[in-house]
Amino acid sequence: MADNPHSITRPAGFRAAGGTCGIKDSGRPDLALIIADQPARAAAVFTRNAVVGAPVTVGRRHMRGGRLRAFVCNSGISNVATGRRGEEDAIAMCQAAADAVGGDPRNILPCSTGVIGQFLPIEKIVLGIGRLVPQLARGADADAAAANAIMTTDTRPKAAHARVRIAGTPVHVGGIAKGAGMIAPNMATMLGFLTTDADVSATLLRAALKQAVNADASFNRLTIDSDTSTSDTVAIMASGASGAAAIRGPDREHERFVAALTEVCQSLACQIVADGEGVGHVIRVTVSGAASQPDALKVARAIADSPLVKTAVHGRDPNWGRIVMAVGKSPARVDPARLNVKLAGTPVFRNGEPARFTPAAVSRKMAADDVEIAVDLGLGDGRAVVLGADLSREYITINADYHT
Amino acid sequence: MADNPHSITRPAGFRAAGGTCGIKDSGRPDLALIIADQPARAAAVFTRNAVVGAPVTVGRRHMRGGRLRAFVCNSGISNVATGRRGEEDAIAMCQAAADAVGGDPRNILPCSTGVIGQFLPIEKIVLGIGRLVPQLARGADADAAAANAIMTTDTRPKAAHARVRIAGTPVHVGGIAKGAGMIAPNMATMLGFLTTDADVSATLLRAALKQAVNADASFNRLTIDSDTSTSDTVAIMASGASGAAAIRGPDREHERFVAALTEVCQSLACQIVADGEGVGHVIRVTVSGAASQPDALKVARAIADSPLVKTAVHGRDPNWGRIVMAVGKSPARVDPARLNVKLAGTPVFRNGEPARFTPAAVSRKMAADDVEIAVDLGLGDGRAVVLGADLSREYITINADYHT
Repeated sequence: MADNPHSITRPAGFRAAGGTCGIKDSGRPDLALIIADQPARAAAVFTRNAVVGAPVTVGRRHMRGGRLRAFVCNSGISNVATGRRGEEDAIAMCQAAADAVGGDPRNILPCSTGVIGQFLPIEKIVLGIGRLVPQLARGADADAAAANAIMTTDTRPKAAHARVRIAGTPVHVGGIAKGAGMIAPNMATMLGFLTTDADVSATLLRAALKQAVNADASFNRLTIDSDTSTSDTVAIMASGASGAAAIRGPDREHERFVAALTEVCQSLACQIVADGEGVGHVIRVTVSGAASQPDALKVARAIADSPLVKTAVHGRDPNWGRIVMAVGKSPARVDPARLNVKLAGTPVFRNGEPARFTPAAVSRKMAADDVEIAVDLGLGDGRAVVLGADLSREYITINADYHT
Repeated sequence: MADNPHSITRPAGFRAAGGTCGIKDSGRPDLALIIADQPARAAAVFTRNAVVGAPVTVGRRHMRGGRLRAFVCNSGISNVATGRRGEEDAIAMCQAAADAVGGDPRNILPCSTGVIGQFLPIEKIVLGIGRLVPQLARGADADAAAANAIMTTDTRPKAAHARVRIAGTPVHVGGIAKGAGMIAPNMATMLGFLTTDADVSATLLRAALKQAVNADASFNRLTIDSDTSTSDTVAIMASGASGAAAIRGPDREHERFVAALTEVCQSLACQIVADGEGVGHVIRVTVSGAASQPDALKVARAIADSPLVKTAVHGRDPNWGRIVMAVGKSPARVDPARLNVKLAGTPVFRNGEPARFTPAAVSRKMAADDVEIAVDLGLGDGRAVVLGADLSREYITINADYHT
C-alpha cells in the first residue's frame, strides 16, 4: 500500500494548498486548491446517481475539453439541491480559481462536499481562494493541507503515491481522497483527486482512469452502506512534466501506467472504507469461479451489502449461513452444490455442505482489522473483489442521532 | 386491518393444532399442523433465493398437483444446508402427517424455520405430529396455538381474517404468519399459511395468490433489511366448503376473492414488519408518477432499503436529502426537476427544490408508529407501495451479539 504522505504534488508540475475560509462552524479547514503549472490533460468519473449536485453538473461540462488547470474543492456544504443559484455558485468558484491562477474558468473542476439543501457562502469561498494562492506549494505539507481541507466526517486524511518507469524514466502518480459513499450524517461524498507527471493524451488518461476506478478493491468496488452520494467524483490531471516519453497507445507502457494508477486508487479506497463511520472491520469479499465477471461482482456486492453479514462480522460470528443466503439472493447464476465459502481463511462451507471447523478459532481470526470472505461459485472464470465494512451501533448513533 | 384472532380455521373445512415437540431448548411451542378435512385445492409461492432449504425443494415438488391435505411446520431448526439427509427428513415429516391424517405424503407441504446447518430431530417431530392429531380443532384457540408454534424470534403471533360474498354467499379467508425475511439472528423466515372455504380451481387459486402477495404493501412488498431467506413460503388451501358457488374464471367474483385474500396478506405483512427485530417505526413508502410500475417499485425499494433513510426515520430526522439520494440511486428513470417528496404528510421537496417547512413539526409527526414517505416522480402512472422499517441499535445488538 502506497502511503507516502507526499502525494499529489510528488508528480512534477503541480502545487497544492488548503485552508479555512469560514464555511464550517467548527473553524476546521474547508477549502483546497490543487493546480497544474500548465494546462494539463484531464479525466474524471462522476456519481451514477440520477440526482446530482451543481458541481457535478458544471464539472461534467468542464471535462468535455479533456483539459484542466485546477481542482477547487470546499467542504462543509455540498451545493446539492440548490437549483440555478447552486450552479451559478459552482461557476463562480471556477471563475475565482481561474482569476487566481490564470486561464479559462472552464478548465477548473469544482467540487463541494457536506450538508445538502444549503447555498454556499460564495463570497467567503471567493476570498478564500484568493488567500490560498500565495500558499500554493509542492511538498508533503502542502499535500496534507489539501487532504485535510476536503474532509467532512473523515477522522484522518487519505493520501497515496506510486512510482513507475515509463520507457526507463520514473513517472509519479499521487492522490488524495475523502469520505466514503453516503456514510456520513448528511450526504458525505467520495472525492478523489489524482495527479501524474506522465505524458499521456486525454483519451488514454480517460481509459486509464476508468480501468483504475473499476479495478478489484478500487473506488467502484467499495461499499459502506450501498448508498450512493449525489456528488461522488474522482478526477486526474496529467502534467507530462516527468520528462518520460509520451504514452502512445494501449501498449505495455500504458499498462504499467494503469497499474500504478490502480495501486493509488486501491490504496485510497481501502483508506476510505477503513475510516468509514462506525467501521471496526474492513470486509474484503473475493468471489471467484463465477459464470461471468458481472456475476462475480453481483455476488460480491450482495455479500458486502447484506446487513446480516455486516452485523455477523461486527460480532465476530462465523455465521456462514448468512453468507450463503447473500450469495443466493444475488441475481447471479448459483449452484448451491458447487458453492465453497472460506471465512478468515477457514473453509466453512464446502460443495453445498457445512464444513467442520472450530467456531471459536474462526471468531478469534475475525478480530483482525481486515476480514476476508472468499466465495468460489465453481462455475467459471468470473472474479471480483469488493471492499465492504461491518455494521455497528456507532453507525446507527452517528446517522440517527445527528439532526439536520 | 383484519385482526380477528379466529383466523385459519374460520373458513369451513379446516382444523389446526400447535404444540411442543422438543426442538427448542426454551421449551416453547415448535410444531404446527393445519389440515383440510378433505383434499383441498392449493397454491404456494416460494423464496427467490437460489439457495433453498430442503422443505422448499420438497414443497415445490408437492405443489405440482395443486392439491394439499395439510401444512406441517416446525420452528427452531430450518433444515437448510443439510443435503440429502435434510430432504429425507422433510419427506419424513410429510409421511408422518399423511399417516396421521390419511392420504398421500405428496399432498403435505412441509415447512421449517430456525437455525441453519443443523439436522432436524426427526423422531421428535414424527412423535410430535402424532401427539398433535387429537388436538386438531376449529376455533380461535386452535388458530392461536398454530400461530404460536411457528414463531422464532417473533414477539407476538400474527393472524388475519377477511370475509367476502361470492354470488351472495359468505366466503372466509384466514391466515397466520411469522418472522420477516432475514431479520432474525440466524435465518428467520417469512412463512404465511392461508386457508379459504371458497370453491376455486387450483389454477385460479394460484393466480389469486400471486396477485395477493404482489399487491401494494403485501408479502412481496415488505423489506426489513433487504435480505432474503432461503425458506420463505406463502401457501393457501381452498376447501370449497363454504357452500358458495364456484369461482369460474377471472371474473368479478374472482376479483372479490382476490381482494379479500389481498386484505389478509396485507394485514399479515404489516404485522410482520411491525414485529421486525429492533423495529420502532414501520416506513410506508408510496411512489407515484413513475414512468412504469417496475420503476415505481425500484424507487420504493431503494428508499425502504437505504440505511441512511432507515436511520433518519429511527432518529425522527426530516432529512429529505437522504430520500432524494435514494430515489436517484435507483435504476429507475428520474427527472430531479419533477421530483416531489412528502414526509409524514408534509411537502419537503418540490419540483427539484427544497420546500419550506418546520423541521421540529415534521420530527414530531415522525414519532408515529407508521411514518409515510410519499414520492411523486411526475413522469407517468407507475405506482407502488412498499413497507419497510427503521434501523436501530437494537437490530445491531440482536444480529451482532448473537453467536451461532
